[in-house]
Amino acid sequence: MDKSSGKGLVLAVGLGPGDPSLTAPKALEAIKRADVIAGYSKYVERVAGYVEGKRIISTGMTKEVERCEEALKEAAQGLTVAMVCSGDAGVYGMAGLLIEMTAREQAFKDVEIEVVPGITAATAAAASLGAPLMNDFSVISLSDLLTPSELILKRLEAAAASDMVCVLYNPRSNSRRELFDKALSIFKAKLGPDGVYGMVRNACGEGEEVRAGRLAELPVDEVDMSTVVLFGNAQTRLIDGKMVTLRGYFRD
Amino acid sequence: MDKSSGKGLVLAVGLGPGDPSLTAPKALEAIKRADVIAGYSKYVERVAGYVEGKRIISTGMTKEVERCEEALKEAAQGLTVAMVCSGDAGVYGMAGLLIEMTAREQAFKDVEIEVVPGITAATAAAASLGAPLMNDFSVISLSDLLTPSELILKRLEAAAASDMVCVLYNPRSNSRRELFDKALSIFKAKLGPDGVYGMVRNACGEGEEVRAGRLAELPVDEVDMSTVVLFGNAQTRLIDGKMVTLRGYFRD
Repeated sequence: MDKSSGKGLVLAVGLGPGDPSLTAPKALEAIKRADVIAGYSKYVERVAGYVEGKRIISTGMTKEVERCEEALKEAAQGLTVAMVCSGDAGVYGMAGLLIEMTAREQAFKDVEIEVVPGITAATAAAASLGAPLMNDFSVISLSDLLTPSELILKRLEAAAASDMVCVLYNPRSNSRRELFDKALSIFKAKLGPDGVYGMVRNACGEGEEVRAGRLAELPVDEVDMSTVVLFGNAQTRLIDGKMVTLRGYFRD
Repeated sequence: MDKSSGKGLVLAVGLGPGDPSLTAPKALEAIKRADVIAGYSKYVERVAGYVEGKRIISTGMTKEVERCEEALKEAAQGLTVAMVCSGDAGVYGMAGLLIEMTAREQAFKDVEIEVVPGITAATAAAASLGAPLMNDFSVISLSDLLTPSELILKRLEAAAASDMVCVLYNPRSNSRRELFDKALSIFKAKLGPDGVYGMVRNACGEGEEVRAGRLAELPVDEVDMSTVVLFGNAQTRLIDGKMVTLRGYFRD
């Protein structure tokens, strides 16, 4: 039990993409140090080798608020809790919700929240594709559960109009397909059919699938919630099957 | 010597931010595996414990093309070269330039380039600040050496107008100060003087300095090339000194 501060602590820990050799030692140290491990069950499984003897709070995918509340309750008793997330805990992860809830509920106000960063899906996918993020880029989630779709479209338009590379998280689910079609149309209108895309399913994890090509040929039906999609900008090229955004070292 | 492919290999390796416990094991394995270590001298020093007996190609900060050329020359002889970068090798790093040069020079055309991702400064700084990247964001470098300042300003305007959080790399040097002033003006115009900023010098490294506050009070003179600056969006709050972008779990 880690009671050094006496106030309780939740460590929001990013495990990085699926490949265990891409998880930072600091993330594993945080897990070892914790009395309690919390997280979506699939992410808790990834650290199964480090959790013996610890209490586990494992919940379903959409139960974010409940998961954070349980973690904070344990911490409020003076315990150290590691909330494990995929990628980076601060990129569409649990870190913000945890901090927000310490301000919303009196019982949690003394709990410390510490964020351990991880490799986020954008740069993991980029590494597998080549080097698409060599210049300015936007990271946009197409999930409209918490963000209105009008605002998501506005951001996509803004990224395309200002020639930023664009990384899409949560691009397409069984019940939400239209937003991805619209996103693709926006970038096709800007870059033309020969604009470059990349897509990576299970980036840097088991069963990874990597694909790069021209927007006109993007296999829309293969895009799902485990896929990260990247749209290039005017300087993005296909070089030997890799997706690369030129930074401008050579002018020709 | 790693001659398994016979073609030569350059590993573009992201070391993550300064804290060694945030360097992924895969990055260190790549360095151990390499015959030659290349990189900006400051980054090569970070892996000094792993380079005994290896040839070192260490160059100054702005010698990117020369550094890549030397690395590719070694690889073209069948060697494995690790090109070390700070943060992620694919975010304003050497990965893209390496791939581009394999296509430009006949002598390098058979050299393989493999990218090992790392924790980039955006999410490292975010973790130290709290959780500013809980919703869509843009990453924009203010360096105008390779990107025209008009285009940089257009991207800043686009990010602000579409209410994206914005992460600025290379925000301000001794000789380039005006662009940061303009960037700040753009976000002040959008968010008002009470808009939230965060800034982190030496994110997750030695001598880290973390600061969050209101745009009207941003200490411009303390912003330098070792600093990452974040401008929030309309949903960004200061909670107990931390910078947090609300994702919208609670509507009130």
